[in-house]
Amino acid sequence: MRWAPDARGRLERAAFELFAQQGYAETTVPQITARAGLTTRTFFRYFADKREVIFGGDEIPEFAASLIRAAPPGLAPVEVVRSVLREVAATRFDGHREETAAWRRIVAADDSLRERDALKRADLVVAAQAAFVDRGEAPPDARLIAELGALVFHVALDAWLAQSSPASMAEATDAVLDRLHLERSIAAGPSR
Amino acid sequence: MRWAPDARGRLERAAFELFAQQGYAETTVPQITARAGLTTRTFFRYFADKREVIFGGDEIPEFAASLIRAAPPGLAPVEVVRSVLREVAATRFDGHREETAAWRRIVAADDSLRERDALKRADLVVAAQAAFVDRGEAPPDARLIAELGALVFHVALDAWLAQSSPASMAEATDAVLDRLHLERSIAAGPSR
Repeated sequence: MRWAPDARGRLERAAFELFAQQGYAETTVPQITARAGLTTRTFFRYFADKREVIFGGDEIPEFAASLIRAAPPGLAPVEVVRSVLREVAATRFDGHREETAAWRRIVAADDSLRERDALKRADLVVAAQAAFVDRGEAPPDARLIAELGALVFHVALDAWLAQSSPASMAEATDAVLDRLHLERSIAAGPSR
Repeated sequence: MRWAPDARGRLERAAFELFAQQGYAETTVPQITARAGLTTRTFFRYFADKREVIFGGDEIPEFAASLIRAAPPGLAPVEVVRSVLREVAATRFDGHREETAAWRRIVAADDSLRERDALKRADLVVAAQAAFVDRGEAPPDARLIAELGALVFHVALDAWLAQSSPASMAEATDAVLDRLHLERSIAAGPSR
């Protein structure tokens, strides 16, 4: 068998093209591998199942948690949220708007994908809460701050994708955060 | 066949007892019906599957949306959120803390239930957003307000269940809302 350079990327591209064209539920693994010019055996070396093609590369909860832990000590939680969202936006989303929009459309059209997506958001909250606890926040405060961060991220993502002349995703996260005016909230830190 | 008074309630009680005792995944429909003294045929008249016993009666998204639409015109969104959460808390949760705690423990212990629960939260946001749009909010504002309402509800629910000397769930939703200080936010209405 010929060695397949970037087999994972080829499978992902083939899968997303087929999901967008004919729907996620209607697409089979053999169709994906045929389009990618690879075997189903190769497919299952990279992905446990079809749904993993959509969500398998998504390590945002872990990435966000590591950024929260690495933020300067003493920085107010709302400013930690701001800087972490900017970093996630700039490194994972800006420059990838078209692919992100295609991915959101595929997810929105299938209830089993919406369900997994919703669980990913819950996982993000759990990971971010743990990271804020590590920064010294009481668990209930850390939960509320983590929920706010996940809310801003998801609302900003949809707003950014809906813009006709899009600014950067990092500007979108800032804009949502600003509209919440959290200066007096639990997220504003010890001086609140 | 003898008519079974409150067959649905008997099946629910039997199911929750077994889920709590031996785990959701380990419990079969025949075990549930045997405990309830009913047939599997009766079970499937009330529930499409085992997961429906956990989530089948949950019409909170529709209930919350109808309350949002019925709130006085001109009431600031954040006050609509406050009154709707109080009403949902008082009518659906207060007085049912033990059952609610048992339900949350069962959900938290099983990833397929966590996933469905997360989707229910997404459905709540969709229903509440549509209701706020009907009240005249622009869709992006309605989305943000709906997300805030769902956030307060879920954070308050867990806080209420964690309290050793619990106040009412309605007080818990008020407390979370107060900690967010949304007076200057998009949710504060036209005078913001």
